[in-house]
Amino acid sequence: MNKLKTFFADCTRKVDDKLESLVPSAQIEPKKLHEAVRWSLFAGGKRFRPALLLAVGQTFGVSDDKLLQTAAAIEMIHTYSLVHDDLPAMDNDDLRRGRETCHKKFGEAAAILAGDVLQTSAFQAISENEDLPTEIRVRLISEIACAAGTPSGMVAGQQLDLEAEGKNISIEHLEKIHHSKTGAMISAAARAGAIIAEASKKEIEIITNYAAKLGLLFQITDDLLDVTQTTEILGKTAGKDVSAKKATYPALYGLDETRKLAENVYFGACGELEKIDKETSLLREIADFILNREK
Amino acid sequence: MNKLKTFFADCTRKVDDKLESLVPSAQIEPKKLHEAVRWSLFAGGKRFRPALLLAVGQTFGVSDDKLLQTAAAIEMIHTYSLVHDDLPAMDNDDLRRGRETCHKKFGEAAAILAGDVLQTSAFQAISENEDLPTEIRVRLISEIACAAGTPSGMVAGQQLDLEAEGKNISIEHLEKIHHSKTGAMISAAARAGAIIAEASKKEIEIITNYAAKLGLLFQITDDLLDVTQTTEILGKTAGKDVSAKKATYPALYGLDETRKLAENVYFGACGELEKIDKETSLLREIADFILNREK
Repeated sequence: MNKLKTFFADCTRKVDDKLESLVPSAQIEPKKLHEAVRWSLFAGGKRFRPALLLAVGQTFGVSDDKLLQTAAAIEMIHTYSLVHDDLPAMDNDDLRRGRETCHKKFGEAAAILAGDVLQTSAFQAISENEDLPTEIRVRLISEIACAAGTPSGMVAGQQLDLEAEGKNISIEHLEKIHHSKTGAMISAAARAGAIIAEASKKEIEIITNYAAKLGLLFQITDDLLDVTQTTEILGKTAGKDVSAKKATYPALYGLDETRKLAENVYFGACGELEKIDKETSLLREIADFILNREK
Repeated sequence: MNKLKTFFADCTRKVDDKLESLVPSAQIEPKKLHEAVRWSLFAGGKRFRPALLLAVGQTFGVSDDKLLQTAAAIEMIHTYSLVHDDLPAMDNDDLRRGRETCHKKFGEAAAILAGDVLQTSAFQAISENEDLPTEIRVRLISEIACAAGTPSGMVAGQQLDLEAEGKNISIEHLEKIHHSKTGAMISAAARAGAIIAEASKKEIEIITNYAAKLGLLFQITDDLLDVTQTTEILGKTAGKDVSAKKATYPALYGLDETRKLAENVYFGACGELEKIDKETSLLREIADFILNREK
């Protein structure tokens, strides 16, 4: 586990350096906009998606300098979605990553614009990445936009999630929501690493299956943590799924069954890795980490 | 002027057909999101930016089928910005293109998400445009993201505009706001047409100067119409600049001087066109049209 800790710390440092180079300084006008962007982007996020992209890329033998700009772009899209999801008209949350949400700190208008421009900057960064051939850049933009958009990506998932609040929904519908809201971007991060590595179609397919299971595992443990952890440890409001009457795995299955489900999904993800003819211990350890995470 | 009318009608039809093919049907889930997207996208907008792109492309001899996907993408970005700008936390407007704004009709959450996904879909459309070489696609994405983003693009301009409300600002600052808020995307539309045509560096520079003047003319006439026209004719709330104490050309210079300024800018735009060794009457007629528009 120590090796993984070093890997994550290393990723965070490199991704933060890259993000730093991609967004304007808070000294440049409009300062408030850039402060808001930076407030949300450098709030100590886990950098899980960029780390997954780097891990997949490394597994297929690509150096980090070819991976980092895309990793940073995916983190920008993830951050834009958090900024908008936290808005009063959406999840109305005051706390994120242990501090005030963007709109609490800078007002709603600046938060809407900060989210908007984070999305713009993400696609700009990929389009201008001279370390990659243009064929790869357009493929990455297409893949990531598909995962971030509609009808089966992140924004579609957020809309479905909002519509499901307070309703009794089936497990199939819950999975559809998660698959689009969080799973699609997690899969896109993993696939992006394989695409940059110019992995074979078969390898990309296996990585996609691994990432789909990892995304599901991520969501199940997220639901568990919302019930079992404190706001202080999570750095975001705990127990809000229950208070918002959201459909979650613990609500549908109970805690014990949910924990068993998490283990099954974990073994499924590891099973996928066995089909790849590469050293995949790093990807297995990431699944370990998600299964056992405490925040 | 009749030729131009036909040109605009033809553009609108072709761009609408292309947009239709690029956004999911309102029968596909999440239906509310797709209805909201379509409500704003097919609200009878002027399609000025796509028309400008097509006009520049045609001037340099490119067929419409190479231009339309980029033209539609630019209209999606323009529409996303209108949807977000109309939100209560921003300009708080109830009326747009003659009908309810997106958030009035579908609620704030769906309007935020509809704007978000329109932006995503725009970049996706360009990345997936198989009629263009990948080098051109990444260049278009970079150009358009730069014009839509920060520090000198549309989102930056919207932030500056919000900050300027109720304040006395200099004419230089007003021009900076307009240049980024509306000018950048108008220039990007014109440049995109020239880029797709693989025009020379010099030609692209002239088109950029023409478009910068056209953008300024567009803003000046927009300010004039806000004062001189009715809500009914405009299809959006008239007189709102005055009531929001916005800095405008008529507020700074008075109506007569503003009209003279508009004419000077118009002649400047036409002067640029004389430097191009092509038949540019269509581009001149567009400048005519902007100078004399009634809504």
